Amino acid sequence: MNSATSSVPGAPDRALAVKLATANRILYNQGVVDGFGHVSVRHDASDAHFLLARNMAPALVTPADILTFDLDGNALDAGDRRVYLERFIHGEIYRARPDVVAVVHSHSPSVIPFAVTRTALRPVYHMSGFLGEGSAHFEIRDVAGNSDLLIRNATLGRALAAALGSNTAVLMRGHGSTVVGASIEQVVYRAIYAAMNARLQTQALALGAVTFLNVEEAGFAAATNDTQLARVWELWSHAVAL
Amino acid sequence: MNSATSSVPGAPDRALAVKLATANRILYNQGVVDGFGHVSVRHDASDAHFLLARNMAPALVTPADILTFDLDGNALDAGDRRVYLERFIHGEIYRARPDVVAVVHSHSPSVIPFAVTRTALRPVYHMSGFLGEGSAHFEIRDVAGNSDLLIRNATLGRALAAALGSNTAVLMRGHGSTVVGASIEQVVYRAIYAAMNARLQTQALALGAVTFLNVEEAGFAAATNDTQLARVWELWSHAVAL
Amino acid sequence: MNSATSSVPGAPDRALAVKLATANRILYNQGVVDGFGHVSVRHDASDAHFLLARNMAPALVTPADILTFDLDGNALDAGDRRVYLERFIHGEIYRARPDVVAVVHSHSPSVIPFAVTRTALRPVYHMSGFLGEGSAHFEIRDVAGNSDLLIRNATLGRALAAALGSNTAVLMRGHGSTVVGASIEQVVYRAIYAAMNARLQTQALALGAVTFLNVEEAGFAAATNDTQLARVWELWSHAVAL
Amino acid sequence: MNSATSSVPGAPDRALAVKLATANRILYNQGVVDGFGHVSVRHDASDAHFLLARNMAPALVTPADILTFDLDGNALDAGDRRVYLERFIHGEIYRARPDVVAVVHSHSPSVIPFAVTRTALRPVYHMSGFLGEGSAHFEIRDVAGNSDLLIRNATLGRALAAALGSNTAVLMRGHGSTVVGASIEQVVYRAIYAAMNARLQTQALALGAVTFLNVEEAGFAAATNDTQLARVWELWSHAVAL
Repeated sequence: MNSATSSVPGAPDRALAVKLATANRILYNQGVVDGFGHVSVRHDASDAHFLLARNMAPALVTPADILTFDLDGNALDAGDRRVYLERFIHGEIYRARPDVVAVVHSHSPSVIPFAVTRTALRPVYHMSGFLGEGSAHFEIRDVAGNSDLLIRNATLGRALAAALGSNTAVLMRGHGSTVVGASIEQVVYRAIYAAMNARLQTQALALGAVTFLNVEEAGFAAATNDTQLARVWELWSHAVAL
Repeated sequence: MNSATSSVPGAPDRALAVKLATANRILYNQGVVDGFGHVSVRHDASDAHFLLARNMAPALVTPADILTFDLDGNALDAGDRRVYLERFIHGEIYRARPDVVAVVHSHSPSVIPFAVTRTALRPVYHMSGFLGEGSAHFEIRDVAGNSDLLIRNATLGRALAAALGSNTAVLMRGHGSTVVGASIEQVVYRAIYAAMNARLQTQALALGAVTFLNVEEAGFAAATNDTQLARVWELWSHAVAL
Repeated sequence: MNSATSSVPGAPDRALAVKLATANRILYNQGVVDGFGHVSVRHDASDAHFLLARNMAPALVTPADILTFDLDGNALDAGDRRVYLERFIHGEIYRARPDVVAVVHSHSPSVIPFAVTRTALRPVYHMSGFLGEGSAHFEIRDVAGNSDLLIRNATLGRALAAALGSNTAVLMRGHGSTVVGASIEQVVYRAIYAAMNARLQTQALALGAVTFLNVEEAGFAAATNDTQLARVWELWSHAVAL
Repeated sequence: MNSATSSVPGAPDRALAVKLATANRILYNQGVVDGFGHVSVRHDASDAHFLLARNMAPALVTPADILTFDLDGNALDAGDRRVYLERFIHGEIYRARPDVVAVVHSHSPSVIPFAVTRTALRPVYHMSGFLGEGSAHFEIRDVAGNSDLLIRNATLGRALAAALGSNTAVLMRGHGSTVVGASIEQVVYRAIYAAMNARLQTQALALGAVTFLNVEEAGFAAATNDTQLARVWELWSHAVAL
């Protein structure tokens, strides 16, 4: 990745925009997003910019709908196209976390009950080893008092990024969740299996005492599964081929 | 909207009938209605009339199946076509609530358990801010004694409208639920997310103590989400294009 | 219906065989049956005979697969085609219940937990008014001791019919359920909404104390819903058109 | 089956490779596997070899992707194609269990909560009689300490096979489950109905005290259902025809 920062980058790599459009469609096809939610990726030529679709349903995104934003949430090429109210989620996480290359924000249904009961997601199986010691929690009332719950400015974005800390997932009370990764493939995988883990954790808690992965197991499992991402990306993208 | 009342209006706007047919199909596609349930909209040229499909499965409705009714539930143009037994739900709500422009009545499955246990739906997240302080409840036995549970006349329709009061949703014990809105797009959104909220509220209650949106948050969230309706309407109508 | 009894009837009405094949496909499409389960109808020209598919997956049944059986479970026209092991469910219920014209036997998933915990299905809403005071229960161990659980002979069929009594549904411990009706349309409706009622009853019991329909409400609701069967049959058969 | 052991066999029967590819697709279509999981079958000409797809998503497997392995997990014909990390599950079970002809390893979602709470799957109905007295349990920590949870070598494979013992299913804590059978059709049936049984057992435990099949009933039911495998195989393969 290019270390350039605030200067305006050229157009992103065409293949990256295609992959981001595909990620949008996969997340809909796999039930992570519905008409809402978004996925971004850091610009391939500038650490200080990221790519994100214009304001629209993820299922319908094509490469032509991908815009470039700076970390303050300003679109460089939106023209008269509307942008997402919550683009600050992405910008402020990219600013706070140099290791992050892709971000998914969603209202993934199975995760919401955890967010509203302040229950951490913890890894029930190796597929969700990326959850490590568990998900972080964000209570917007602590920052904004009573609000519409959205991350609609940089201050809220910074507070969310602070709550995320070094975790891979942060649950947002009354709203949804945000997951980060080192690539589009990895963040899509994490968003899908965070949702699956939530389903399974809910069911397991109803059955009895749960043995979660311990931190060492979680780390080993996450590392192994990262070597298998091409396999699932092939499957998921096959189902939504543009 | 035209303020004319009881005189017979001309034919409704063709685009409105098309949109209402689309709404029928969306509600089926999204699992809110099955072979039963209906959605109506106030006539664009008369506050004292509304549009509703003939008695048929919502999934199969086309613009040619849309009829015009007065608020007493009389069809102006049914000919020999059967009408829904429960058209009084719509007429009496339009009479009691001048702010209401569209109504969905359904047996949306996830909501039924709330109706039969007298548990109010309350907003677990911003998507269902329209629920405000919670859903209203209607017990038909209080009005009709033992019955077939249906809103089959004006008296029952008025009792249901009274139970609804100024809320956006009323749960009907042993029957289903009714949701109101200021447009077709809004009422379809509300019906879909009332059902989703019910699913999530059930799961959250099993996990622990739930922090619901407070009234102020609910109001702010509802106002914001109303600005995003075009996005989901595009998605939903895309999936059921006539 | 012709009152002829044990003499061999002619070929059934072609439309009836088509409708029975359609019912097979609907029950699969609606999730009541999977690779197992069956639906029968009394012969249109003989009360002492019924129609049932050859031994095959319901989803694949065509009119050419429909066979005629007498009430003892003997096929008149099977040739070398295999028949269902449990055809005695149908024959013995037709013998015991002159009012029954159609029978569905399935392993409808949501109903199984009720069967194995001896919990009666009771109507949570008007759609399942046909459940009346609740489902009957059948414990095959009382008749057969330890067995493969199947109704594989006339003795077991008679015991099941006795357990059913005058009810519309009987739950079979460790096995499944059987639902009866006065027509193919009605029994398909009942099988679909017995399964839905089971889902909703399970969820409602987790939320709190349930107000079920009382017997009078159940009767009124069932009578009303029987007048709406054409609406759902049109929808369901549309989805599986042969 | 040929009793030859360690010598290198010829190419497997073409029909067997086609059937194994079909099994891969069925398991995806029926929700047992997602992008992960695998199914194998013993070589038709050598008890000491088995067939398994190359490392790829099961939904996309074709006969050309089927490789031959010896029981130590060495591929005879992989060339530059990647193999599954966990092929040792298959090899060591085939070594320990001469009666086993086919093996499914999956992360079948409904089963995971049982694995992580050490709750045995027990047969709630005749369809899952093959579960007998219940599933076995495997705790990898007992063998490997903290690991990535995968069966990535022969030692772990032998430990898993030992935990399986003479059962038909073994649940793997923090990972998934493995099911064995005497044919591809039977193991696919068992994997599908182990998952269904898990769903139903979870729901039943929430309703009340469960009467499971006793051991004798389970045995009788399993024997009967084995005579009906052709019926479901026809249905399942129809849905995924290559």
